[in-house]
Amino acid sequence: MNESRILARWIVDSRWEELPPAVRHETKRAFVNWIGNPIWGARDVVMERTLAALDPFSGPREAALLGRPERIDPFKAALINCAASSIADYDDTHLETVIHPTGPAASALLALAERHRMSGPEFLHALALAIEVECRVAKALAAAPARVNVAWYMTGVVGGIGAAASAGRVLGLDQDRMLNAIAIAAARAAGSRETHGTMAKNLVAACAAEDGLFAAFLARAGVLAPEAPIEGKRGLGVLVADGADYTAMTAGLGQSFELMRNAYKPYPSGIVTHAAITGALELARDHAPAPEAIRAVRLTVHPLCLELCGRRAPKDRIEGTFSVYHWVAVALRDRAIVIRQFSDATIADPAVIAVRDRIEARAEPHYRRDEAEIELTLADGTILRRHVDHAAGAFERPPSDADLDAKLADLVEGVLPPARGQALRNLCWRLDDAPDAAAILTEAAGAR
Amino acid sequence: MNESRILARWIVDSRWEELPPAVRHETKRAFVNWIGNPIWGARDVVMERTLAALDPFSGPREAALLGRPERIDPFKAALINCAASSIADYDDTHLETVIHPTGPAASALLALAERHRMSGPEFLHALALAIEVECRVAKALAAAPARVNVAWYMTGVVGGIGAAASAGRVLGLDQDRMLNAIAIAAARAAGSRETHGTMAKNLVAACAAEDGLFAAFLARAGVLAPEAPIEGKRGLGVLVADGADYTAMTAGLGQSFELMRNAYKPYPSGIVTHAAITGALELARDHAPAPEAIRAVRLTVHPLCLELCGRRAPKDRIEGTFSVYHWVAVALRDRAIVIRQFSDATIADPAVIAVRDRIEARAEPHYRRDEAEIELTLADGTILRRHVDHAAGAFERPPSDADLDAKLADLVEGVLPPARGQALRNLCWRLDDAPDAAAILTEAAGAR
Repeated sequence: MNESRILARWIVDSRWEELPPAVRHETKRAFVNWIGNPIWGARDVVMERTLAALDPFSGPREAALLGRPERIDPFKAALINCAASSIADYDDTHLETVIHPTGPAASALLALAERHRMSGPEFLHALALAIEVECRVAKALAAAPARVNVAWYMTGVVGGIGAAASAGRVLGLDQDRMLNAIAIAAARAAGSRETHGTMAKNLVAACAAEDGLFAAFLARAGVLAPEAPIEGKRGLGVLVADGADYTAMTAGLGQSFELMRNAYKPYPSGIVTHAAITGALELARDHAPAPEAIRAVRLTVHPLCLELCGRRAPKDRIEGTFSVYHWVAVALRDRAIVIRQFSDATIADPAVIAVRDRIEARAEPHYRRDEAEIELTLADGTILRRHVDHAAGAFERPPSDADLDAKLADLVEGVLPPARGQALRNLCWRLDDAPDAAAILTEAAGAR
Repeated sequence: MNESRILARWIVDSRWEELPPAVRHETKRAFVNWIGNPIWGARDVVMERTLAALDPFSGPREAALLGRPERIDPFKAALINCAASSIADYDDTHLETVIHPTGPAASALLALAERHRMSGPEFLHALALAIEVECRVAKALAAAPARVNVAWYMTGVVGGIGAAASAGRVLGLDQDRMLNAIAIAAARAAGSRETHGTMAKNLVAACAAEDGLFAAFLARAGVLAPEAPIEGKRGLGVLVADGADYTAMTAGLGQSFELMRNAYKPYPSGIVTHAAITGALELARDHAPAPEAIRAVRLTVHPLCLELCGRRAPKDRIEGTFSVYHWVAVALRDRAIVIRQFSDATIADPAVIAVRDRIEARAEPHYRRDEAEIELTLADGTILRRHVDHAAGAFERPPSDADLDAKLADLVEGVLPPARGQALRNLCWRLDDAPDAAAILTEAAGAR
């Protein structure tokens, strides 16, 4: 039996009650970490334009948009909610593969929740399966000797497969149809990092969410697809990585969980910037240097930090996501990171730019991706230095449930009424007792 | 100015009247060659299932389905019509890159034709631009020293870019927005050949058609995208081919036309099988050997023929598309190829199988892709041999306009009433005088 079929069988046969309690709790944490993002992003200009383009083509308006009053058809809801969730780059990251697994699957599930009644546990279970599948497929590809070409936006590559898995589970696909759903999604897997720093970046994960629904419904209708869509001779695997290790798709399946190695971003910027930001915040909180007294900042980071997030002078907040210089400057000036700093105004703030322009960064190939060092030279000659072994939010330094609660509160503030924000947080943590997952949408959709 | 922007500028600035007459006529030929395919394919099981899955989600039913009575929203019409057009693998092929360029663009245009009034020349012009763009982008990628990984289904990779170009032209995008449309489509470019031999193959070009519309409408709404989506450091190019020659995207643009090197399939099978089929038909017509008298058949073909179409014992007509053995056997038995032979019954016909099982094939690396040799050994010891320098339908042996007319007539027979089929053929050849391209749909949609 090939790896894709083993995955399909697991998705179909798995039982929520049989997942380890830690995995079930971690799935809730992944969802709490994520759900604030599309609500916050719902009022973004990217969303306004995407919705303006797609709304005239909407089918039956069976699905809510998060943080917005409009309703739209499920395929477009999946796409739009997922796009919104990726705008601030503040969701989750499976560090080994740098994918953001929750968005495509959670968006596909929420788009279905009003159409196909599912309980809270059924929702969480489908989400857990999808996250696990996405991480495992990405891990198989990332295991190639030459690694994956950094130009691939891997969330786009595996996100549709995860979304198909979750939607397929909710639709009750049998093993053959589940495999077809995976295969149809794999045939549409796409995404390049050239989009990063532009609005189009947010479409990559978004399209994966829609593709997953598409794949699940087509598979349900009996559209047949290849038996080995990822690991086959001309499958997705050989397109993405030369020499992928497909055994990673299935090794220890149901016993060990990549989902437990999914990290939650503490800052709305590329994950590879987080170690440097952690160091900057620690120095700023411990020593409170006046921003204007900072003469020079030296960063030492993993090469991928500069490769992916090395923009020196971002022109707007989207480009800012990919600038370690910008976010370290914000951390040093404000001594805290909250979502309202993710703005064009912050990018253009002369006080931030003044600090930013005093930062030099150097790549150190021997560093881990979540490791960094920061050295400040102050006007009086004082040198402050901090070595960060693991970034905040990394596997070794996970946020507490309370941290995730605070992040969700920060993200929904000003979008949802305070009582709704609180109700949403309570509901999310108690989702495994909820009779109907659509209750999430009652709280998370914008007032009509 | 980068290559993608030069393409965008050309798409926006080009004028139909300024294209060489031969190019304008060839665009009509490409359309006449193609339009029978979705009409024929409209009653296929793949279509029934795809439509059943997607119809419940249809938005405003502003677009006709070819050969069917139903109407559906334009995005889904683009997808479904293009899927139908690829079922028999009987459309066109740009031989240098093995892409089938007309389907995604023509499907996107027809999906828009009732919503955005366009004249026949506007329709043909947008189609010409799209075909040219698809072929040029594919050529740039195919120029890489290591060639393109054969696992890529290149029509999926470039089809969305072409569809975006054609839709964007009809929507009147300016240069910046046209570039964004190309970039959004490029970010969603996808497709693996592992799908070949399954229903999912037909979704690859189909999704490209839809993606092109999606990209054009999102770009029109102001969604911004990268400036160098194909040729950029992390763009589509480096994902598909190591060392692509992006100058092929623009060299001689508006002067020399890849569209003139687009071939029209004379047989409903993979293009790489056509030289062998041509030889089989020539021997069969010239010598009329009784099928049961054929003791052995030896084929010598380009390696890609066996790589892509080397299935010895196809289990159904879809797999049969990828079997040079099957189609050479059909040619030897029936001495002609028409669309009704593309059937599961033909695949299972013992008389076909008896010939098929006597065929041996050998790859000859020095052959051109459109070159083959066939040698028959008859029961009486007679040896018949034919060397085919160029397959029928190849660039050097193009079908006449009358051949294309006969192909269209063959494809629509039994789907459209005879008078409608004739009216459609007349209209297509006179499209450059038609005031409204939607007239195509009046003839080509199924009776309601």
